[in-house]
Amino acid sequence: MKRRIYLAGPEVFLPDAREIGARKRAICERHGLIGVFPGDQEGAPDPGQPPSEQGLAVSQAVEHTMRGCDAMIVNLTPFRGPSADAGSAYEMGFMRALGRPIFAYSNDERPFLDRVIAFCGDKARLRSTGEHEDADGMAIEPFELYDNLMLIGGIIASGGCLIAEAAPHTERYTSLVAFERCVISAASALLR
Amino acid sequence: MKRRIYLAGPEVFLPDAREIGARKRAICERHGLIGVFPGDQEGAPDPGQPPSEQGLAVSQAVEHTMRGCDAMIVNLTPFRGPSADAGSAYEMGFMRALGRPIFAYSNDERPFLDRVIAFCGDKARLRSTGEHEDADGMAIEPFELYDNLMLIGGIIASGGCLIAEAAPHTERYTSLVAFERCVISAASALLR
Repeated sequence: MKRRIYLAGPEVFLPDAREIGARKRAICERHGLIGVFPGDQEGAPDPGQPPSEQGLAVSQAVEHTMRGCDAMIVNLTPFRGPSADAGSAYEMGFMRALGRPIFAYSNDERPFLDRVIAFCGDKARLRSTGEHEDADGMAIEPFELYDNLMLIGGIIASGGCLIAEAAPHTERYTSLVAFERCVISAASALLR
Repeated sequence: MKRRIYLAGPEVFLPDAREIGARKRAICERHGLIGVFPGDQEGAPDPGQPPSEQGLAVSQAVEHTMRGCDAMIVNLTPFRGPSADAGSAYEMGFMRALGRPIFAYSNDERPFLDRVIAFCGDKARLRSTGEHEDADGMAIEPFELYDNLMLIGGIIASGGCLIAEAAPHTERYTSLVAFERCVISAASALLR
């Protein structure tokens, strides 16, 4: 039976989100997987409801969708800051607790430390303990992982993998080169 | 039996994280709950291991700790961007999938839309569809929720609540005023 893969990432916020969802699904199909893109199944929010009710209904529909998937592929390309999109991070924790494998990719190959330092406008500094901290005095994780350790730990513990590969800056939310490599890895792990 | 509450948030990155953890635990204790702060139980990483192994070991210890807690209180104060800390978002999804109630607080009372617009340096604009988008052309959620809809949807669906209340900017990662209000709400929900 074909495996259903939940496709998480900030591209849901693109103006042409449905189109990129269709492209992602086609790539999955080509490698023997069923891609499930948020919004494909849940239907549009009911415009008769107050906005907050619409948002909560979407959230519950997405959780239902995730429960029906065998694994996830998540886009960790940094979103509005040096880390992954918060909604995608939530979904990773959700799938991890369900015991589903998490495969990840990013269109930004820079190490986490470099991304946080760039985000701080070079105001990062060293603590006397040798750790870096950001402009607010908050530690920058010294673990040489790609993002917050919970995200990367969840990927590894679930049996997944992470592929980070630079895309041109203007294509960082639309390039599917690293995504396709990730699909191939996921298919190889899930279909063997 | 006393309820164990996992205490999530970016204050683990403060130089005095252990001290703030102790203050949070004392507040929980005062309201009849056992606060469990990340790092309290897991022990320090083994400095003999490579950094990435240390980070992955911490992640697995934290997941184990979360499985042993009855609920969570999470700090959604924006961290390195307009949204909550990615690690905390992951932990919310994890606890939600386990069916545990999620109580949330933030020391920043501004609506999500205002925070994203400020983050964009006022480069946000309107789409022809009426939605706002950020400087990268990514939609800003129109749902009038406090953060990404997955986070807020998880809180509400789990039976938890959200308390957002301004703290002075310099105390936004240390003030425990909103935290204590959140503990009181959690205690009232969990101990009835």
